[in-house]
Order: sequence, then C-alpha cells, then structure tokens
Amino acid sequence: MSILAVGSIAFDTIETPFGEVKDIVGGSLTYFAVAASYFTDVNLVAVVGRDFKEEHMQVFAGRRIDLQGVEHARGKTFRWGGRYSHNLNSRDTLFTELNVFEDFQPNLPESYGQADIVFLGNMHPSLQISVLDQVTTKRLVGMDSMNLWIEATPSELRDVLKRVDILKVDDSEARQLSGEHNLRKAAGVIQEMGPKMLVATRGSHGSMLFHDSDIFAVPAYPLEDEVDPTGAGDSFAGGFFGYLAQRPKLDSAELRRAVIFGSVMGSFCVEDFGTRRLERLTYDEILDRYRAIKRLTHFDDI
Amino acid sequence: MSILAVGSIAFDTIETPFGEVKDIVGGSLTYFAVAASYFTDVNLVAVVGRDFKEEHMQVFAGRRIDLQGVEHARGKTFRWGGRYSHNLNSRDTLFTELNVFEDFQPNLPESYGQADIVFLGNMHPSLQISVLDQVTTKRLVGMDSMNLWIEATPSELRDVLKRVDILKVDDSEARQLSGEHNLRKAAGVIQEMGPKMLVATRGSHGSMLFHDSDIFAVPAYPLEDEVDPTGAGDSFAGGFFGYLAQRPKLDSAELRRAVIFGSVMGSFCVEDFGTRRLERLTYDEILDRYRAIKRLTHFDDI
Repeated sequence: MSILAVGSIAFDTIETPFGEVKDIVGGSLTYFAVAASYFTDVNLVAVVGRDFKEEHMQVFAGRRIDLQGVEHARGKTFRWGGRYSHNLNSRDTLFTELNVFEDFQPNLPESYGQADIVFLGNMHPSLQISVLDQVTTKRLVGMDSMNLWIEATPSELRDVLKRVDILKVDDSEARQLSGEHNLRKAAGVIQEMGPKMLVATRGSHGSMLFHDSDIFAVPAYPLEDEVDPTGAGDSFAGGFFGYLAQRPKLDSAELRRAVIFGSVMGSFCVEDFGTRRLERLTYDEILDRYRAIKRLTHFDDI
Repeated sequence: MSILAVGSIAFDTIETPFGEVKDIVGGSLTYFAVAASYFTDVNLVAVVGRDFKEEHMQVFAGRRIDLQGVEHARGKTFRWGGRYSHNLNSRDTLFTELNVFEDFQPNLPESYGQADIVFLGNMHPSLQISVLDQVTTKRLVGMDSMNLWIEATPSELRDVLKRVDILKVDDSEARQLSGEHNLRKAAGVIQEMGPKMLVATRGSHGSMLFHDSDIFAVPAYPLEDEVDPTGAGDSFAGGFFGYLAQRPKLDSAELRRAVIFGSVMGSFCVEDFGTRRLERLTYDEILDRYRAIKRLTHFDDI
C-alpha cells in the first residue's frame, strides 16, 4: 500500500516565543511525508531548486519515502517565513518567495502511475487536477486547500472537489468554502460538492470527521509545552492518510482511528521546531500517544 | 442528596440573529437550578425585587427546587441585557442594573444548614465566603467566578478558593486567574490555590476536567441550530454538580460522567432562548444526548 503525495517543499524561517530557526527544510509535503512514512510508503511529487542540496534531503533519508518524483529545477527553492504571537495562536507571514514553485508542472515518474491513496496537497487546483489526471489507478483521493484558492480560483477548486473522496481543511476554510458558519451545515454543503468525507482540523481545539451522516469529534491532545505549530495540519494529514493507506477497509471505525493518528502526529509536530520532533519519533511513541488520547477522552456508558 | 446553590436571578433581555426576548427570567442561578433539578434537589439562595411576581416563579415550579432561601427585597430585580454577534461567538453587554443584587446579604434558612454540595455561583467573593460560613455540614464545595472578580478582588478570591473543591470557569478565566496561557499549566497553578479539581468550559470547543494529574477532555456536541448561548456555562454547571450530588463516590469515572452531563445540559440550553429548552426537557432526552456524545467521541483501541 502506498500514497502518492504532491505538495510543497520549502525553506522555512520561523520565529516563535521559544526561539527561531532559519532556512530549515519545511513545506506542507515535507511534514506530510515524514508523518505518513511511519505508516506506509510515500511517493513524493514536488519541485526544489538548485540550492536544495544533498544535506537538505536528509530529512527524507532512511524513511519509506520515494523521491523519484522530486524535480530539481533551475532556480531557488520556495521560501517562507513566519512569526508567531506570544501564545502561538496567531501568526504573521514575513515573506513568501515562490521561486521554482511558481512554474511547477507536476510530472509523475512512470512507477507512480498506480497509487493506493493520492494526496493532493495545498496548491493551485489546476496542478491538483494535473496530478490526478496522471494517476491511472487509485483507491482514494484526499485533498487539502486554503483560503487563497477558495477566493482566487473557486471554479477550478470545484472541479477538483468533484473528484475528491476526503477533503482535509481547517474549520475556518470549511466555513469559507461552504459559506456556512455552523460546521455541521458546512460539512453538508461540502459533501454535496463531491467529497463524501470531510476532516476539519481546529488547531488546539481538536478535529472533526464528517462521513455521510456520521460525525466524530476529538479534542486536541493537551501539550504542556508547545514550541512551533508550523506544519501541524500537514502532519495531521500525514498520520490520517498514512494510517488509511495500510488498511484494507475504510469504515467508520477505521476512519475514526485515522483521525486519532492524525491528532497524534499533529501533536508531536508542535513539540519542536519544524520536523525535528517528527523525525526522531518511534512507532512505540506513536502508539503510546494514541492510547493517551484514548485515556484523555474515555468515559463510561450511563 | 441535595445542592445548596447561591447566585443571581435576573430579568434578561437578549438579542441574537435569530430573534430577541425582553425581561425573561434568567441569571446564573436560574439556569443552574433548572438544569440541576433534573438530577437532584436544589435549595436556592438569591434575592429578587418586588417586581418579581408569582408568574416569574413559574420557571422553578414543579421542579426539585426549594425557594425558601430566595429573598424578596424592596426594589427592583437585577437586570441584564446583551446582544450577540451574527455567529454567536461574541456578545456585547447592553446594560447591567444590579438593583437589589447590589446590597445582597445571603441569609440561609435553617433548613439549608446541611448540604451535600454547596455551589457558589459567580458573585463577589465575600458573599461566597458568607454562604460557606453558614453551612454547617457539606461534602463538596463547587464554585464559579469571572474576570471581574479576578481583577477587582484577587485577595478575597484567593480566600474562597482555599475552601473550594471544584472550580468551574471558562478557559479564558482559568488563564487569567493562573497567569498561564497553557491550560495544563493553568490547571496546575489553580490546583495549588485550593481546588483539587478544575472544570474549564470552552464554549463551542467543549470542556476539560483536571483532577489531580488526570485530564479528561470532551468536544462540544455539534448542534445544527444554535439560538442563544446565554446561560450555557451555568447549565453545564447545573448538569455537572447535579449529577455528582446523587452519586455516593466521586472517582474519575463519575467525574467524567458529570462532565458529559454538564455538556448535555449546556448543549440543550443553546437550542432556544433563555431557559425555554431546559424547561421542556425530559430525562430520556438527557440520556439520549449522553449516548449521542458517546457515539460522537468513541473510537476503538489500536
């Protein structure tokens, strides 16, 4: 079982009240891939620049990550910088330099043609469509997006959504996409657009899964020390789709477990800068946190 | 088993995007009492004015609510008015007229001397102390407070907290009281102040219970139609303490169940203006929603 995932690889500069890091390897696909690789094989589709050296590839090394689909283009790698408020609950973007990502044309290696799960990371909907068109067989299509595409390319976004099984966005994006403030109503509207399933992450408030008329909600694992929220949503997606990729059946019980593995990976991500915590995880730690969330949320029948 | 509860009874004027009501019977104690009375006997300590007539007492009639401790003072009843934003996630206070509540001196009927649980509703800490001093025997003391007292009477508040077992506040109040943004750390600081247990409500994001080193979290029940959030926190407290009052043992399993009954009563409260939905509840509906929250949050072990 494997995931084909497309998204951004970037150099991130991050300032939080607990320190700052400069030009570390980030981007949505990096977080997604490292998180998902604890569960399944991940085939990446992305672009980096000539400044992305062997040493930068180390984050992917020794993991179940295939880099054949990562193009090294002439130019500089996508760069992003952000600064968090003192409670980490808001951030300002300091700069965004798309660089080689601006002219990215996803080109899948032949070996990528068959995928168990296709994950379309947050990017221009026309690029998401282009990836989807190149995959010959797949079981499930997952997708992420953001306010930028909801506002700038609504019609292209609708075209992708028709071909997507699971949309994973944050709650504010779900509200914006649907035009409904109430999350239950928002989910209903989005389910009419194509995806049968919606996973809405809510930062430190947990996440919700809408699957037909079934609703599942889980609070976030309460960390005592939060260091850097960058990539938490992408890590959630990695855990969620990574778990699903290895399961033959996608029923309500498995989808709920996938949400918990998403929460687990998102919570670890926040414990250190960038992908540092994700990189040094063990599978036992992942299972331990799964059980910790079970203890956190369990209550007896009446 | 019974609860002795002190708090405010008021005439509320409420505007939400779904309508408005004028001079309905509200106040924290009203919500608390109606919610708790589905579980246990509730003895009220409060003050109303001469404008509070027999017809206004109807909200308490036919319930397990004792009104002997409600004083009818010369003057007008406490009045409050508020207007909610279009998403119900913020509100402006339009007016607050304390009236007879300003000179309130709680005076307990002799029959109130023994109580299973004493609940000190949100009010000046010196009034909370005065009530506590008048109760000869009690098993458990619960308390609510708000930003006003945290800022205006910090030292009196500390004095009450030393004598309290369970503090129920919203998450922003817990942060303000402790000076810690992180809820786990905030709980640790508050537990040092006296209360062994902290219940932090988080509006539409659910609630958390901190009990020694045990942490329990539950998401809010996702309502499709929210009408009026006024009193949801007080209704939560009513369900929480009401359930506990009838249970001989207060272990982690019972405390967690109590949080769920709190969530149940808070969620019903929001479905209509004022106490309307709470008033017409059946115990079967309460049990049904408990089970619905169980389904909402359940996931299997790994």
